[in-house]
Amino acid sequence: MAQKPSIPKGTRDFSPVEMARRNYIFDTIRDAFRLFGYRQIETPAMENLSTLMGKYGEEGDKLLFKILNSGDFLKDVSMEDINSGNLPALTNKLCEKGLRYDLTVPFARYVVQHRNDIQMPFKRFQIQPVWRADRPQKGRYREFYQCDADVVGSDSLLNEVELLSLIDFVMSKLRINVCIHVNNRKILTGIAEAIGEADKVVDITVAIDKIDKIGIDNVNAELREKGLSESAIERLRPILLLNGSDSEKLDAVAEIISGSEIGMKGIEEMKTVLDGFDSLGHLCNVEFDPSLARGLNYYTGTIIEVKALDVEIGSITGGGRYDNLTGVFGVSGLSGVGISFGADRIYDVLNALDLYPEELKGSVKALFINFGDNEAKAAMKCVSDLRLAGISAQLYPDAAKIKKQMQFANAEGVQFVVMIGEEEFKNGTATVKNMTDGSQQTVSQSELTDILC
Amino acid sequence: MAQKPSIPKGTRDFSPVEMARRNYIFDTIRDAFRLFGYRQIETPAMENLSTLMGKYGEEGDKLLFKILNSGDFLKDVSMEDINSGNLPALTNKLCEKGLRYDLTVPFARYVVQHRNDIQMPFKRFQIQPVWRADRPQKGRYREFYQCDADVVGSDSLLNEVELLSLIDFVMSKLRINVCIHVNNRKILTGIAEAIGEADKVVDITVAIDKIDKIGIDNVNAELREKGLSESAIERLRPILLLNGSDSEKLDAVAEIISGSEIGMKGIEEMKTVLDGFDSLGHLCNVEFDPSLARGLNYYTGTIIEVKALDVEIGSITGGGRYDNLTGVFGVSGLSGVGISFGADRIYDVLNALDLYPEELKGSVKALFINFGDNEAKAAMKCVSDLRLAGISAQLYPDAAKIKKQMQFANAEGVQFVVMIGEEEFKNGTATVKNMTDGSQQTVSQSELTDILC
Repeated sequence: MAQKPSIPKGTRDFSPVEMARRNYIFDTIRDAFRLFGYRQIETPAMENLSTLMGKYGEEGDKLLFKILNSGDFLKDVSMEDINSGNLPALTNKLCEKGLRYDLTVPFARYVVQHRNDIQMPFKRFQIQPVWRADRPQKGRYREFYQCDADVVGSDSLLNEVELLSLIDFVMSKLRINVCIHVNNRKILTGIAEAIGEADKVVDITVAIDKIDKIGIDNVNAELREKGLSESAIERLRPILLLNGSDSEKLDAVAEIISGSEIGMKGIEEMKTVLDGFDSLGHLCNVEFDPSLARGLNYYTGTIIEVKALDVEIGSITGGGRYDNLTGVFGVSGLSGVGISFGADRIYDVLNALDLYPEELKGSVKALFINFGDNEAKAAMKCVSDLRLAGISAQLYPDAAKIKKQMQFANAEGVQFVVMIGEEEFKNGTATVKNMTDGSQQTVSQSELTDILC
Repeated sequence: MAQKPSIPKGTRDFSPVEMARRNYIFDTIRDAFRLFGYRQIETPAMENLSTLMGKYGEEGDKLLFKILNSGDFLKDVSMEDINSGNLPALTNKLCEKGLRYDLTVPFARYVVQHRNDIQMPFKRFQIQPVWRADRPQKGRYREFYQCDADVVGSDSLLNEVELLSLIDFVMSKLRINVCIHVNNRKILTGIAEAIGEADKVVDITVAIDKIDKIGIDNVNAELREKGLSESAIERLRPILLLNGSDSEKLDAVAEIISGSEIGMKGIEEMKTVLDGFDSLGHLCNVEFDPSLARGLNYYTGTIIEVKALDVEIGSITGGGRYDNLTGVFGVSGLSGVGISFGADRIYDVLNALDLYPEELKGSVKALFINFGDNEAKAAMKCVSDLRLAGISAQLYPDAAKIKKQMQFANAEGVQFVVMIGEEEFKNGTATVKNMTDGSQQTVSQSELTDILC
């Protein structure tokens, strides 16, 4: 026998049961996107490497899957190219195309390419797989789905409020307990400015983030190492020790950074977004978290990150405001704000907590047992009528042993087994067995649609 | 300004309007698959090249998109490999993975890899894109979707009947007029045997196929060229001139091939399938077509091909019975039968005939005009309540000129525009404009859900 076939590491097959679960997640997110007025687009799996390269940093360039040119791929390659040892340069000659690495760069490319056909503000959503040549590990795959919603062409903070509301809606539907952490890049800039270390935003944010894990003394030691002055460290202290309600924390930060114009703008934005969200009413917790720095060099305003409360898994959704989505493609001045639901992480959360609805388990509603040619013909007609009435049904295709067919019905999790045996065939009846409670009744074949609907 | 970005040739972006249309097609097919008891699986976009190579012929190997190995892709490549000019061998060293070329080989790989977890008979469906490095041309893309349904592990002809019923169901739902052409590989073998030219099945089938286009004399000339004897050509004549109803045609063929055991088995199978389909009642035409030879070397029993009647486009769906799906992966004896809906061709047909339902055109049901901060807040609360009630709605995020907002509402095709201006804000009311008939009414904000549902 040939070697058992396998799939590339970091990729997955999804069985019918897994697909039912994943569809439940994707359908929930997709329905919410539509309800909120986001409109779907799709872009090709393959993009030109010129579109992708240089957008994700040097490390990202390496993690792109590149597609070997078709035909004579050595055409433009010289011996010098090969001997130079310059793999990136050689790659460029061997490959023109790469696989999508995220949905943001293709979206930016889409907006620029189709800008004459797009109504602004453009609320788009996109649910497609992306590919990264990352080292596979638990919870990290080389092929995984992203579910992105973005608004471009509007500076209004109502977009941020709406995105928080969207997160609240989706997480409530999926019954995942979460805390939505929010921050604003301008506040982080303001803090750095206010303590006289405007160029050390990253170091300061990392320090704030670590306070719970390593304590104030270790954080301060690290800050010293990074070259922060003693007076800066002293002035940062109240922020590191921040507690209380969101509005208390915002007020405390505001007091410290009152001299920073941009910082105070950040405070004002944060208050507007939180007030707007509160006025809609919501089920999920939301928390102002000045340590949140997700994609620091990318986001320019609000930053959002969602953490599941009942599973240790890190961020399951995140996003924020960026001011120059399409600048790299030559169109500047387009502000946007968006979030990305991590469908694969959400899948892991729902699996861990078994939060799936009961009805996902089965295949068809009614399975008809096959008692041989004539009976099967009558059964097939009933099955066909049920389907026309919108009731999923199937006939076991072979006249196998009844026990085997019943085992199949059990394994598939069908709700009803319908039997048209010799007796029923003669009388134009059918015996319906409810697989949940084991009850049985014999009815006329024409009544099946009413009974099984 | 940077060069306007583009996408690889043969690939496509899909706009919100195009997505709505495509989703209509995919949803119709997916719902039908589920109703009929097929269960969904998904496989990775990337497969090991060892899984894909050699499965689609030499030409197919060339049309596979191959993925350059990550990291030092020259590691295993010697100067000899490069200088040899043996590109396929070099490709194997540069690339371990390739993109899915169809859904059948990944399905076969799936069945073998997971055979211990699969209930037989296994009715699976799969809707995913595939990639081929074909020369792009009108209606032929390098990335396109396939929608496949197959049953493996059952020899019963009821499966064939069910697949015809499935085609009938889907085409009726999509309102496409089609003719379902059916044939049986065993009949083709029988004809070749009966006229004493058992090794010339392909030539004979091609000849039968051409009769309408080039006439009997030219067909016979071609057959002579292929080396058929005069007596064989004479004996084939009645099949070339076949007409009448399906049962008349079947009887005529049966008479000619009565000496071929396999041929008569094919006639019997064809009759069983057509009778079974007729007994269910159907809307689409079905026709026994002895010239149908789709995938001749692959199919072993029933062959199915669906042609749209109102658009010149060729086959839009096809399939058949194959006897050894998984043999290449070392598991033999698994018979299967399946069909593949050509979603991109169906999309072209629906576009050509504009067969889309009216309701696909718009985005949200209700767009709220933004009259400034306070009014927008009240509007946002109404929007949020509508969404919780399952009604899609959005607020224009910026307090732009009313004219601009109304233009946006028109372009997006919303059904209702809702205005909460200064007056309405004061009174807790909202003015609802029906965009279809232009009528307006002012109601209390709490009534909006009832009015817009």
